[in-house]
Amino acid sequence: MPFPLPPGSTIGILGGGQLGRMLALAAARLGFDVAILTPEPGSPASRVAAHTVISAYDDPSALGELARLSDVVTFEFENVPAAAIERLAALGAQTAPNARSLATAQDRIAEKRFFEAEGVPTVAFAQIDSAADIGPALERLGAPALLKTRREGYDGKGQAWVESAADAETAFAAIGNAPAVLEAKCPFVREVSVIAARGRDGRVAAYPLSENRHENGILRRSIAPAQASDATAAQARAIVATVLEKLDYVGVIGVEMFELADGSLLVNEFAPRVHNSGHWTADACQVDQFEQHIRAVAGWPLGPTDMLAAAEMLNLLGEEALDPALAADPMARLWLYGKVGAAPGRKMGHVTRLKPLKSPSPNLCPLGRG
Amino acid sequence: MPFPLPPGSTIGILGGGQLGRMLALAAARLGFDVAILTPEPGSPASRVAAHTVISAYDDPSALGELARLSDVVTFEFENVPAAAIERLAALGAQTAPNARSLATAQDRIAEKRFFEAEGVPTVAFAQIDSAADIGPALERLGAPALLKTRREGYDGKGQAWVESAADAETAFAAIGNAPAVLEAKCPFVREVSVIAARGRDGRVAAYPLSENRHENGILRRSIAPAQASDATAAQARAIVATVLEKLDYVGVIGVEMFELADGSLLVNEFAPRVHNSGHWTADACQVDQFEQHIRAVAGWPLGPTDMLAAAEMLNLLGEEALDPALAADPMARLWLYGKVGAAPGRKMGHVTRLKPLKSPSPNLCPLGRG
Repeated sequence: MPFPLPPGSTIGILGGGQLGRMLALAAARLGFDVAILTPEPGSPASRVAAHTVISAYDDPSALGELARLSDVVTFEFENVPAAAIERLAALGAQTAPNARSLATAQDRIAEKRFFEAEGVPTVAFAQIDSAADIGPALERLGAPALLKTRREGYDGKGQAWVESAADAETAFAAIGNAPAVLEAKCPFVREVSVIAARGRDGRVAAYPLSENRHENGILRRSIAPAQASDATAAQARAIVATVLEKLDYVGVIGVEMFELADGSLLVNEFAPRVHNSGHWTADACQVDQFEQHIRAVAGWPLGPTDMLAAAEMLNLLGEEALDPALAADPMARLWLYGKVGAAPGRKMGHVTRLKPLKSPSPNLCPLGRG
Repeated sequence: MPFPLPPGSTIGILGGGQLGRMLALAAARLGFDVAILTPEPGSPASRVAAHTVISAYDDPSALGELARLSDVVTFEFENVPAAAIERLAALGAQTAPNARSLATAQDRIAEKRFFEAEGVPTVAFAQIDSAADIGPALERLGAPALLKTRREGYDGKGQAWVESAADAETAFAAIGNAPAVLEAKCPFVREVSVIAARGRDGRVAAYPLSENRHENGILRRSIAPAQASDATAAQARAIVATVLEKLDYVGVIGVEMFELADGSLLVNEFAPRVHNSGHWTADACQVDQFEQHIRAVAGWPLGPTDMLAAAEMLNLLGEEALDPALAADPMARLWLYGKVGAAPGRKMGHVTRLKPLKSPSPNLCPLGRG
């Protein structure tokens, strides 16, 4: 085994967006080079990477080139074909997370069946292969229920609420008549997420729970630590540990959950990658989710996940990122992604604001009460 | 004037070493691209830059290419020819810091005369053009005294102690018979430095004083904040403000000083760039020296310089950087520079350790006592 990778090794990344860019910056901090494979010329990640391969994700010769360049290959985008990871593995490349984790995350039915099989609480659901499946499912799940495509939805795309069986055809058409899942409406009081990592040694490290607020299906704001009871936080950590271990996962994962009125949690979904709701770690933790992912896939020990400060992260959508007041605000930690074209709703950057923690970690956090 | 530069602009950097690499990472955070000009293929900085020009620093066509690529040009290395900055300016490029600041820093006699002219206290010195100048100078300055080449010395290179007039020929030969300065021995109790920045709006922001410990002429350790009285810290801030204003400086500067037994300061020298003794800012401040420099040269408002934590930075020389215990130490914030070849004494990385501040900043530091 080549792990731990020595500094100077190359981390391959499938995908060239802002997550890849922030992973590349974290890799550079540890002395690694990065090779990006992306179909997009001039992508945010490739502009800070030593190597770029411009190609479709499933091009065999491009995957071969990435495998040759890289000592380990990971991804920043969960819609890369799982077959690309399998192909890289067949070429002898080290890859992480594994193809099974990616494939499970890509199919909402496979994901929910995985949760059920492993005793991870999730919302009641039904598999929908045609509009005709919606009526009976709605009877079991109750109305309204949320119809989602099995594959490729994100930021609220590919979703439609179903109010009654009469809506079945319309809703199914609204999501493109694609194979789908119907989910019972969850009476949550809060949306939270846990960002966690599993190393090649099997060790798991979770960051504190984050509370997430969405607008129009897009993450708007994450607040950490979430206002949650110790029992809720413990359940969240137990869930994420189960998911990581049962998938034999290596790397950072983002697990989105609903908190119910009694403080218990239902899992919504997981993202097999660094996650927007963990961006605050870059300003509030000694080792952020990006460095943690690089550490994990490179076979290094995981770093501490203690918070040095409480944090609130705000996504900057479209032209919001161009507001000069952000650069002038001494309390605003600004991240801009180098994207060309500030289309409305497009994630162009984010800003994190820190404030003192009520209860600093007694061990690893150096910034307690002195 | 093109300032403030919008995100997506390109920052040109002369020099491809670790300082350029950390500047490039900071620029990326703010959505800028970077173009590196360096004679070294595969340099640490160019591996995280969107553009690289491989060339000698004085090549006119390479400078032309850098000027075309860049919206502003800066440098990470004080031995780039000041003529290169002048050439870039003549090509219409925006440059910062200015050529005068660079030229002053490159010539220890010019630098000391600048300090004298501006009332900045510095060690007594004499200009040495030949070995014959040493005897009379030694009589005035006292023995022993330190002979330094006027140009291009760093990390203790190009220096020799002169114990008596009889050493004159030997010492002058030891520094290559080059034009030199002889400096009186300074009875300092501590070596300290101030990292500060001046923006295009003339605003000055200084980080807290750092205490620096050298070994074999190489910076080994920086501790911040330095144990210094309020009066000493105030004198340091006044000195750095004078230097920045009188040079009409834009960007980050590192000013090295000797603290005497009575707490007063004598300036040793300044570096017209980000400085090794300010690396701790990357882990202990909201805006570090690298982002501060990018902000300054891009015409952005300067960021806060408050410390979130006390910090101690240790340079990793040669094979020290390969010690696996560093990656496993949860209190060690590790930076590796991606250099190939861990020659003894070569700066390969650094590690910062944080601990609670005794007196957190009441205003901008969010991590006080809650």
